[in-house]
Amino acid sequence: MAPEVDRAFPVRAYGNDAANAPITTRQIMRRALRPNDVFIDVLYCGICHSDIHQNRDDTPSQRTTFPIVTGHEIIGRVTAVGSAVTKFRVGDIGGVGAMVDSCGACTTCRAGREMNCLNGATFTYNSPDKISGGMTFGGYSDGIVVAEAFVVRVSPGVNLAASAPLLCAGITTFSPMQHWRLEAGQRVGIIGLGGLGHVAVKLAAARKADVTIFTTSPRKIADARRLGARQAVLWSDEASMKRLAGQFDLLVSTVPQPYAFQPFIDLLSLDGTLVNVGALEGLHSINGLSLIFGRKSIAGSVIGGIPETQALMDYCATRRITADIELIRPSQINEAFSRVVNKDVRYRFVIDMKA
Amino acid sequence: MAPEVDRAFPVRAYGNDAANAPITTRQIMRRALRPNDVFIDVLYCGICHSDIHQNRDDTPSQRTTFPIVTGHEIIGRVTAVGSAVTKFRVGDIGGVGAMVDSCGACTTCRAGREMNCLNGATFTYNSPDKISGGMTFGGYSDGIVVAEAFVVRVSPGVNLAASAPLLCAGITTFSPMQHWRLEAGQRVGIIGLGGLGHVAVKLAAARKADVTIFTTSPRKIADARRLGARQAVLWSDEASMKRLAGQFDLLVSTVPQPYAFQPFIDLLSLDGTLVNVGALEGLHSINGLSLIFGRKSIAGSVIGGIPETQALMDYCATRRITADIELIRPSQINEAFSRVVNKDVRYRFVIDMKA
Repeated sequence: MAPEVDRAFPVRAYGNDAANAPITTRQIMRRALRPNDVFIDVLYCGICHSDIHQNRDDTPSQRTTFPIVTGHEIIGRVTAVGSAVTKFRVGDIGGVGAMVDSCGACTTCRAGREMNCLNGATFTYNSPDKISGGMTFGGYSDGIVVAEAFVVRVSPGVNLAASAPLLCAGITTFSPMQHWRLEAGQRVGIIGLGGLGHVAVKLAAARKADVTIFTTSPRKIADARRLGARQAVLWSDEASMKRLAGQFDLLVSTVPQPYAFQPFIDLLSLDGTLVNVGALEGLHSINGLSLIFGRKSIAGSVIGGIPETQALMDYCATRRITADIELIRPSQINEAFSRVVNKDVRYRFVIDMKA
Repeated sequence: MAPEVDRAFPVRAYGNDAANAPITTRQIMRRALRPNDVFIDVLYCGICHSDIHQNRDDTPSQRTTFPIVTGHEIIGRVTAVGSAVTKFRVGDIGGVGAMVDSCGACTTCRAGREMNCLNGATFTYNSPDKISGGMTFGGYSDGIVVAEAFVVRVSPGVNLAASAPLLCAGITTFSPMQHWRLEAGQRVGIIGLGGLGHVAVKLAAARKADVTIFTTSPRKIADARRLGARQAVLWSDEASMKRLAGQFDLLVSTVPQPYAFQPFIDLLSLDGTLVNVGALEGLHSINGLSLIFGRKSIAGSVIGGIPETQALMDYCATRRITADIELIRPSQINEAFSRVVNKDVRYRFVIDMKA
């Protein structure tokens, strides 16, 4: 594909036109390369539960503008660079996560937390595109144009397909471990063993934390040790939940919908924090006293800034940490969505764009 | 009154026998002085909203055993000491807050956080009394026997009546300011301008923080500056709430019942924390995304340990910080309860036990 530098150009993409409509092949326009832009020939794109939420328009506080093309776990080859690009050369591998632009000037951007840009970050899809107008289109596409500042370097030696999920699932779970300073030997619980959860377990185990998985799927229990956890607990198992009361400094909830946090609050130690990275809508009521005694917290966290994302990619490359993936063709996206919702994936679908 | 060292002895107290029954004068038994105990001839006891909750038995997760004698903002004169007491001499002034015992041996107790004793702290009233059996009786009483470790020193030069509320209202709001490191110039919001809230404003102002009061009472707005706040905002004032979005590193919610936190989450800055110290029951649902973006937290905090309580009393003595109180007689307790519930107090009732 030959990107243009003087006019917008078409690429093939996979998206839908209305909530619950199937995803179909379509043509979308990408902007002409500006001096700081790179064109990425997309090789792989992970399927995040957020993609499904947005395709189905089921998140009232984050409505979808149709047509939509989702995908924000993108890895591809840089095949063209703008005249002022310094970070990439043609042939390099680049990664794009959940955001593609921010003001770059506010205190938050300058602190490397572009996702919280005080002037509003631009997310990779379904986000007002300040450069081209309209809404952004994501990585379920043959190619994407992104400012180089929002593209991270990917070591060519890694498994590219299995590294794509690090760009959302990875950074989303890595960032709270960094911020809440998860240390070796510390007890951490990962709630939900899906795309985010299974990467979270690997990342926590890499820090030599003492990892417990909380899952609703008896069939996933067996995977716990292989992924690096010391134990896995069915959260319907009241006896186990009771036994674990007060033991966790940090719980990372990766479940992509609200559920009752209360049993998990009781698992927190003094000053412990439950960090929700998955549930976007109304959280279930919890008991005030249960936070008051023990000075516990419920917090949220969203992806991570570009410097932290680059750090994660390098960290994972060095330690050979990747996602467990099932590679699919673009024609299988609809089926994959259904299987994600039915918890039938071990543990992340990645679309092979060239298949 | 002459406490006994070899047998329990009676004191006069004020309590009730059933939810919503009026508070009446009664006799209760205090334990014989053990070697480490002091007897405090109670001079003043503040009326905390928790007293009302417990007298009315309206907190499902913290049921009341009747009869109950509440009161945990106690200041009095030490008139007898056990044989091994070293911290107090007869004639000293002592203060007792919301707890009277803990194991003293667990890691939490040894860290000076006795309220979170891993073996269960004993609270000043309505708490299983591990020493005497039955339930503890609080400070609406002519006298109380307490282990010296749970009595703080009160400088004799302070206004004793107006210092009593520091033992709960004070430490409850001081402790989160310490833990979340509220600093000079930082923006802090105090939600609710009652017994806790007005002391919180004074404590935050003493740190030279930039204090905003959030109240539902238009009549209280005028007090804001006198108490040390820069501004007061009616939280029904949507325009002001919108103007303040994203501005607060710390919000301390002192409101003694659940309400919608959501508008306040929006006032938090990045990494900001809303600390609830008042609402004991089910917190209203909040939107997950609103915590996720900005890595915000909702936390709880309960009183403070004995070392921190002593530090607070000394801090307030040095800076002449006291509560704004209305002194009442024991016969006025029922009336005072009604007035607290009707928000008709500026800002704390204190019972003069000798009146």
